Amino acid sequence: MKRRENHSPLAPACPIPPSKGDVIVIGHGSGGRLTADLVGRVFLPALSNPILDRLGDSAELTVGGSRILFTTDSFVVSPLRFPGGDIGSLAVHGTINDLAVAGGRPIAISASFILEEGFPIEEARRIAESMRAAADSAAVAVVAADTKVVERGKADGIFVTTSGIALAPEGLELGPERIRKGDAVLVSGPVGDHGIAVMSAREELEFETALTSDSAPLNGLVAAMLECGGRAIRCMRDPTRGGAATVLNELAKAGGVEIVVEESAVPVRDEVRAACEILGLDPLYVACEGRLVAIVEELEAEKVLAAMRAHSMGAMAARIGTVAGSGVGRVVLKTPFGTSRLLDVLPGAQLPRIC
Amino acid sequence: MKRRENHSPLAPACPIPPSKGDVIVIGHGSGGRLTADLVGRVFLPALSNPILDRLGDSAELTVGGSRILFTTDSFVVSPLRFPGGDIGSLAVHGTINDLAVAGGRPIAISASFILEEGFPIEEARRIAESMRAAADSAAVAVVAADTKVVERGKADGIFVTTSGIALAPEGLELGPERIRKGDAVLVSGPVGDHGIAVMSAREELEFETALTSDSAPLNGLVAAMLECGGRAIRCMRDPTRGGAATVLNELAKAGGVEIVVEESAVPVRDEVRAACEILGLDPLYVACEGRLVAIVEELEAEKVLAAMRAHSMGAMAARIGTVAGSGVGRVVLKTPFGTSRLLDVLPGAQLPRIC
Repeated sequence: MKRRENHSPLAPACPIPPSKGDVIVIGHGSGGRLTADLVGRVFLPALSNPILDRLGDSAELTVGGSRILFTTDSFVVSPLRFPGGDIGSLAVHGTINDLAVAGGRPIAISASFILEEGFPIEEARRIAESMRAAADSAAVAVVAADTKVVERGKADGIFVTTSGIALAPEGLELGPERIRKGDAVLVSGPVGDHGIAVMSAREELEFETALTSDSAPLNGLVAAMLECGGRAIRCMRDPTRGGAATVLNELAKAGGVEIVVEESAVPVRDEVRAACEILGLDPLYVACEGRLVAIVEELEAEKVLAAMRAHSMGAMAARIGTVAGSGVGRVVLKTPFGTSRLLDVLPGAQLPRIC
Repeated sequence: MKRRENHSPLAPACPIPPSKGDVIVIGHGSGGRLTADLVGRVFLPALSNPILDRLGDSAELTVGGSRILFTTDSFVVSPLRFPGGDIGSLAVHGTINDLAVAGGRPIAISASFILEEGFPIEEARRIAESMRAAADSAAVAVVAADTKVVERGKADGIFVTTSGIALAPEGLELGPERIRKGDAVLVSGPVGDHGIAVMSAREELEFETALTSDSAPLNGLVAAMLECGGRAIRCMRDPTRGGAATVLNELAKAGGVEIVVEESAVPVRDEVRAACEILGLDPLYVACEGRLVAIVEELEAEKVLAAMRAHSMGAMAARIGTVAGSGVGRVVLKTPFGTSRLLDVLPGAQLPRIC
């Protein structure tokens, strides 16, 4: 079982704590433990404030009497185009989803482009058009933009940074501090499609698959879930870098609870499973860009799951686990063989530059 | 007079209109005509909507009954540190100023970092601390952040993208459509300090100067101006890439007016003038990062100018020109010799990667 191997040959074997003389390594962009180290030891201490310190998918602010959500993400995916999307649609979906999983109704997006000298203008146009289509599908507009150019060899074609604003949900608090023992753990669809689709588009690791990325806006699905489940929905996260295993760990740690995941209940497409075995990856750590993990009060879980399945973005939603205890923040995986093991955060990157 | 030369040897000699097969050139990042071409022919047609199409320093939105401003900018300045600042403080000031010149009271900032493998972590920490200090000085916090990492040779140390939200000024409309014949043109201080300070820090063009960048937050100055001038202030812009000449052209074109600038009235430090003569640059095209240009109703202009001079960020404020006519969007420069010439937008970059 290759899937038991928690780090790929691409990732450093152990975490490197930053100290004087240390430099950035690829694993610092993994979304795993090295990323958490970098954020926790460098950026958070410098920029610390009560809102940033929460480390949510988006920040909640009060502006002129309204509660709004605010988020930002840079996108450096390589290659720029992959089955099911490109850096433009990915950037828009990523920002919409960070707002959506906090329950927000997206209002506006900004986009900033860093272009490398020599980048084809036709390609920039295609990416912009792809952003427009992605924004339209979530009924949101790109209202502010910027472009910068650097010399050849000082960037990698194009980098896109999107930020977004949403109206926070009225009368609804979502957050890991609301997680309770007995809650159900739901996922909105098969995991790992995005990561494997991007890998399949990389020249150096080409293999045959009809797989497309799951990159998609989740605001419609979230609206349907909130309409059905309301306050029974404790919190949600979108499992991007680091995959479902990493966000489950973030939720378990932030909520101070033990989450038990049934490995056999986790939806994984056959193509993803096969690719993961070849690459020595665990699908639970592979990025999604159109999925969410939700922690829902047990009593309402079946109803919410049914609502998810009734929505086009949640047709293959599944219950994958339970909040089994409190007091210790960790994730335990129950294997089909009846054994259990800790599903920890990986130190570095399984798949670099996946978003 | 070297200053009459409108393009440096670094810039392409003439504008290259984007068409099929064309690629990004350094001049597309200049803030001048090539940037306008790229935005106008590629990004705007794809992303077009009434808010983005205004091409203001920030976008105005209504969110839950409140009017807010929203802006974004990427920073790719080289070198990362220069006299008077670094990429971190520059990014924060740049975003605060885009909000401030629209009359906004900055509420929150986001920051997204693209890091190159091998970048010193100590340097990342210094940049984050510099951002914190810059944000503190404008009483605003960085509430959302992201970090991404790319392989060595795929970026240039660190790129920073900041976005910002402000509360729009109540009962106040600022915009170039409000400019009228007879209005006064004010600038808040000497022009070109930032661009020349960055150039002085570049190895290849080192020259002796004690000059520091003017990079600074303008929200305090704007608050003082609005308190004094109110609706007499027609509109403001911060002359970053492309300098004062470029923003004056933007205002003249957007307002459909002719602006006449008295060259001898434009405050320019001796060091900047000397460096510009050596480099063959015109200070009117050199970037500032802590200055603003304001168009003010003639009757209130002296009062507003006095308020600017009473503020630490406007001690050397000056009246540099007048709105001389309407119907044609252009800027005319009256030289000390009594002659006049068109002060046009440059095609490409005088100084690449200045912000």
